[in-house]
Amino acid sequence: MKIGILGATGAVGRQMIQCLEEQNIPVDELKLFASPRSAGGKLPFKGQEITIEAVSETCFAGLDVVFGAVSNALAKQYAPHIVKAGALFIDNSSAFRLEDDVPLVVPEINGEDAKVNKGIISNPNCSTIIALMAVAAIHRVSPIKRMVAATYQAVSGAGNGGITELAEEIEAIRAAQPVTPSVFPYQIAYNCIPFIGSMKDNGYTTEEMKMVNEGRKILHAPKLRVSCTCVRVPVYRSHSISLALECERAVTPAEAAEALKAYPGVVYMEEGYPTPLMTSDQDLVYVGRLREDEIFDGGLSLWCCGDQIRKGAAANAVGILKYLVENK
Amino acid sequence: MKIGILGATGAVGRQMIQCLEEQNIPVDELKLFASPRSAGGKLPFKGQEITIEAVSETCFAGLDVVFGAVSNALAKQYAPHIVKAGALFIDNSSAFRLEDDVPLVVPEINGEDAKVNKGIISNPNCSTIIALMAVAAIHRVSPIKRMVAATYQAVSGAGNGGITELAEEIEAIRAAQPVTPSVFPYQIAYNCIPFIGSMKDNGYTTEEMKMVNEGRKILHAPKLRVSCTCVRVPVYRSHSISLALECERAVTPAEAAEALKAYPGVVYMEEGYPTPLMTSDQDLVYVGRLREDEIFDGGLSLWCCGDQIRKGAAANAVGILKYLVENK
Repeated sequence: MKIGILGATGAVGRQMIQCLEEQNIPVDELKLFASPRSAGGKLPFKGQEITIEAVSETCFAGLDVVFGAVSNALAKQYAPHIVKAGALFIDNSSAFRLEDDVPLVVPEINGEDAKVNKGIISNPNCSTIIALMAVAAIHRVSPIKRMVAATYQAVSGAGNGGITELAEEIEAIRAAQPVTPSVFPYQIAYNCIPFIGSMKDNGYTTEEMKMVNEGRKILHAPKLRVSCTCVRVPVYRSHSISLALECERAVTPAEAAEALKAYPGVVYMEEGYPTPLMTSDQDLVYVGRLREDEIFDGGLSLWCCGDQIRKGAAANAVGILKYLVENK
Repeated sequence: MKIGILGATGAVGRQMIQCLEEQNIPVDELKLFASPRSAGGKLPFKGQEITIEAVSETCFAGLDVVFGAVSNALAKQYAPHIVKAGALFIDNSSAFRLEDDVPLVVPEINGEDAKVNKGIISNPNCSTIIALMAVAAIHRVSPIKRMVAATYQAVSGAGNGGITELAEEIEAIRAAQPVTPSVFPYQIAYNCIPFIGSMKDNGYTTEEMKMVNEGRKILHAPKLRVSCTCVRVPVYRSHSISLALECERAVTPAEAAEALKAYPGVVYMEEGYPTPLMTSDQDLVYVGRLREDEIFDGGLSLWCCGDQIRKGAAANAVGILKYLVENK
């Protein structure tokens, strides 16, 4: 298979290179595309150094699959050229996620959906992937009706720039220098920012509405109700989410625990609980603090953590391709 | 008035000294008590240096009011001696909070309750005070039936030791030295820990059940249902809480905003939103992100922040005394 990565030098793009190797995708050729600024640089893949090429409208010729790890604007700009070149575009941006003829896929949950596509498959929002991985097993036991989510999102969600900004702020504070945020609206070091994305008319942010709309599409649950608050916290990589759930029928913690233990890609912690730090730089979603919910009769509360760059982005995107290769 | 502070050298005790000055409590004499280890040291009050005395069972003689900023064990040990000495004990520990004849008071919400006491008044849990300040105005518009809370709690909730531990971990990581947590169960720098207090049989932590049980007592709402997840985050002083509410009748965001604007001790942010950093080292509770809730018909979602050492502890405790002085 000939594979390209659009946006190869970003936090997600670099992780995609590593995930292709780790997930044993049969890669005959790997092409790395980035802005002209990054062209000529090299990144390692399977012991080789691959030269980064400047992206262009014609650079996708001959490729079978292109992974996208760029902004919505760039994804929209290059998608027609990727599709025209005959490659499958597995896109991490939110540009196409809610379009009717674009599958939105978490392989463990709705891998089948990936099979019917018109050349574009979308990778879901990072917090949505991690939250849904934590509840999908329960949703199979009894469909989820209502869900309240509060997120604790790592700075990596804003890419390399977010990671650098937190590190630089810590240094500036230490040196008693002024902090000048540019990636985040306020200082993120020693702070929490309850605002990610932009504001919608209903008072929710675009990031919060992704959990609602993408959750419905992925779970095939058009009536699912989700109340979400998305918060940036001074953590580097893993996102955490606190969830309260109501299912169609009562589900006990014991029943949910059995389902979670059997679910692929999930680690259920019966003792202890996951933290973002202990779940960083690996592909599984960890679930803990499972208990009866106090406001939903027969409902459940839980806490989950997963690496935002990996399962929340790169590992899931590569996992979509792996699913298609293994389920032709 | 002759006032004593038990546990004067801790984060809350030191803040109490400052709050007594700021809130213009008519103090004729201030006595500071701590462990024998701290005795002999001095702390400033109204331009004077006050010598710290070793606490003893007889040290409370002649005092009118004693503020407690010590552990439950020490509060229980000294409470009988404080009451016997004829002083009012305003206690920040959780030792007496749920006892029937002990008022549990947030002055703006249920100040009246403080008037009927048997010598002990309890100061509520920090997250509970901040969350209830944010919802009390709405509770007056229409009683709250159900509430989902996810907290983002500062390290100061664990006292001076918590503050020092975060700072030391940041330094250790910077120097590539091992991190050895002692106050918190895991590294808190660049991490979130979804566990505060100890585990109860129902899978909730003691900290989470405080929001339920203290919330009911303070709001005079014995049937209030609260589902709470308490999480420690690497923030120094202010706690933040994400809340989803269902009231007895539908309350619009506009109605709630009017009520919040008129409520003492609360700052409602119509534009923007509060962060823990911008609300640190002041006594008000800030509310923002007010919007219709997506899972409760006619419900509300909001985000609030307040300084844990001040309104979450010292300022509220001193505020109870101020209420009693002004409402004899």
